[in-house]
Amino acid sequence: MADPLTGPVEVVGAGLLGTSIGLACREAGLEVILSDVSAHHVRTASGLGAGRPTGADEHPQLVVVAVPPDDLGSEVVAALGRTDAVVTDVGSIKGEPTRVVAELAPEAAARYVGGHPMAGSERSGPLAASAALFDGRPWAVTPGQESDPTAVTLVEQLARTCGAVPVRMSPEEHDQAVARTSHLPHLLAVLVAGRLAEAPADHLALSGQGVRDVTRIAGGDPALWQQIVALNADALHDLLVEVRLELDVLQRAVASGDRDVVGELLARGVAGTRAIPGKHGGPVSPTRPVYVSVPDHPGELARLFADAGASGINIEDIHIDHDPGRPVGLVELVVAEGSAGHLHDALESRGWQTHR
Amino acid sequence: MADPLTGPVEVVGAGLLGTSIGLACREAGLEVILSDVSAHHVRTASGLGAGRPTGADEHPQLVVVAVPPDDLGSEVVAALGRTDAVVTDVGSIKGEPTRVVAELAPEAAARYVGGHPMAGSERSGPLAASAALFDGRPWAVTPGQESDPTAVTLVEQLARTCGAVPVRMSPEEHDQAVARTSHLPHLLAVLVAGRLAEAPADHLALSGQGVRDVTRIAGGDPALWQQIVALNADALHDLLVEVRLELDVLQRAVASGDRDVVGELLARGVAGTRAIPGKHGGPVSPTRPVYVSVPDHPGELARLFADAGASGINIEDIHIDHDPGRPVGLVELVVAEGSAGHLHDALESRGWQTHR
Repeated sequence: MADPLTGPVEVVGAGLLGTSIGLACREAGLEVILSDVSAHHVRTASGLGAGRPTGADEHPQLVVVAVPPDDLGSEVVAALGRTDAVVTDVGSIKGEPTRVVAELAPEAAARYVGGHPMAGSERSGPLAASAALFDGRPWAVTPGQESDPTAVTLVEQLARTCGAVPVRMSPEEHDQAVARTSHLPHLLAVLVAGRLAEAPADHLALSGQGVRDVTRIAGGDPALWQQIVALNADALHDLLVEVRLELDVLQRAVASGDRDVVGELLARGVAGTRAIPGKHGGPVSPTRPVYVSVPDHPGELARLFADAGASGINIEDIHIDHDPGRPVGLVELVVAEGSAGHLHDALESRGWQTHR
Repeated sequence: MADPLTGPVEVVGAGLLGTSIGLACREAGLEVILSDVSAHHVRTASGLGAGRPTGADEHPQLVVVAVPPDDLGSEVVAALGRTDAVVTDVGSIKGEPTRVVAELAPEAAARYVGGHPMAGSERSGPLAASAALFDGRPWAVTPGQESDPTAVTLVEQLARTCGAVPVRMSPEEHDQAVARTSHLPHLLAVLVAGRLAEAPADHLALSGQGVRDVTRIAGGDPALWQQIVALNADALHDLLVEVRLELDVLQRAVASGDRDVVGELLARGVAGTRAIPGKHGGPVSPTRPVYVSVPDHPGELARLFADAGASGINIEDIHIDHDPGRPVGLVELVVAEGSAGHLHDALESRGWQTHR
């Protein structure tokens, strides 16, 4: 039988993720012990209510290592040596720390279970933290071959305590999965964005919402991504080779005017967008956008959503289009296919300029 | 002196764009004449109030060709031959129709001025049309070397009549600009999405908002994109070669663990995201996200935006995160940097679970 998670939980690294975990555990009534190379971060996190600074003789039940990717392995090994606790981490790559533990602390490998909550923010540091950061997010739990089953369930309890949904997979599977769903998209967004850095300014005036969406993640912290790319190099390299081969095919087809080959690649792209799981992990339900022109003043969006809310229709997604040249925003409300007509009519009847 | 746009305006192709232009011109009090290979489309557009079906002896002041990219050149030439009017079009590529006119109707080239409104929808056809489709959007106006200045100003008047902002550039510049800001991003999004089509389903469970944003446009109509890629092959090929060279550099750096090279590419990507013009074409002002956990029921978003509106803070952008596993959505409200703290406090005081 698994032990219940009763604490204390020790959090190593009081940044965005560590402090958020501290806050969530404190909300659940668990004792939380905080440490960080920055005493300032510990004071801030502690002041926010995320736990107390570490003392002389601590006996945590669970240690959560929340440090940059490069330091994961060594900090996990240090925690395994310093305590008898189960140790987990929240880093973006899982093979590397698992290998470091197997090499440097094989006798303690039963107590290590990696983890990776699919949550973050464009901000970092304890001030950006929140107990709600993990609400409803997947949290990969990645036992190694030596991990003790009770240690695995303890880490899954941590994920649930933070409001997340544990998803169990091996460290290798995890790294392959995030190479495909996170690291490769990041790098190709970077290559697209790199072309914009060199563009004449008047060409960029034609930028629409598409290129903004494609390149948004390319704005992420280069120092962090440098580490992620280096530590997931194997899985990433395989995918880069695949992309390069396909890019060769595409380039030749564009040069020779082979529309069939271009069409096949485009069709596979459409299939890929449909393969991403829908909201709440279920199958993707067909949706329709309804576009509304909204004056760019405070309160106008509130009025729009009050009117949309009065229609009783659930809004699945929203995009606000950034239009150069005019103080009018175009808001795209995405609703279930069958509700688009109803929403359109409801908004028009309340005086909104609306189109589908 | 330029003639004022007084109509009649003849719209060839009563799809999404053509019907929307008809609606906007009718709203401005202009006579609109509609034609389409599909009599059904003309009836629908006409029924929506976008104009009247074309008759026997028409004398339009301006013809707007709104047909698929492959048919642009021939339809523009046909309109130049059939009428004495100024002729424009609204296709995604501008070099090709300009060349076709120079070759097949050189005597009428003064009357042709290409155009391209930066607007569209995931839907197509007249039923998706709206007079508001072009509100605040850039509308590229692309005179050829032979275009008469009065024809250029007439087409710019059409753009303004539709609520758009004319942006004048040469056909060649236009095609290079959209290759960079639209066509290349589309193709690389397709390559990322293609990798997802082949992925194990349990790997896709780790998909976050990043990959959804990068791949969204890859869901666009393959038949349309096949034509766009073929007709803008030259500009696109140059960029594909650049990307392929950079991908080679990246692949080697990942394989050899050269962090400096990866870091340089990442930094150029960050610079590229900052090069995109901000909302309303001005410089990008610093913004901050505020995250709010929202129960996934009708009316909750309305309540959130009513509360946000009461704070008096202007919301610059919104993202709704699709969280698998739980009926809770995470809504990201993007506001000016200096307003994030105020919005956070205002929402917390009204009972929202909020973090920055």
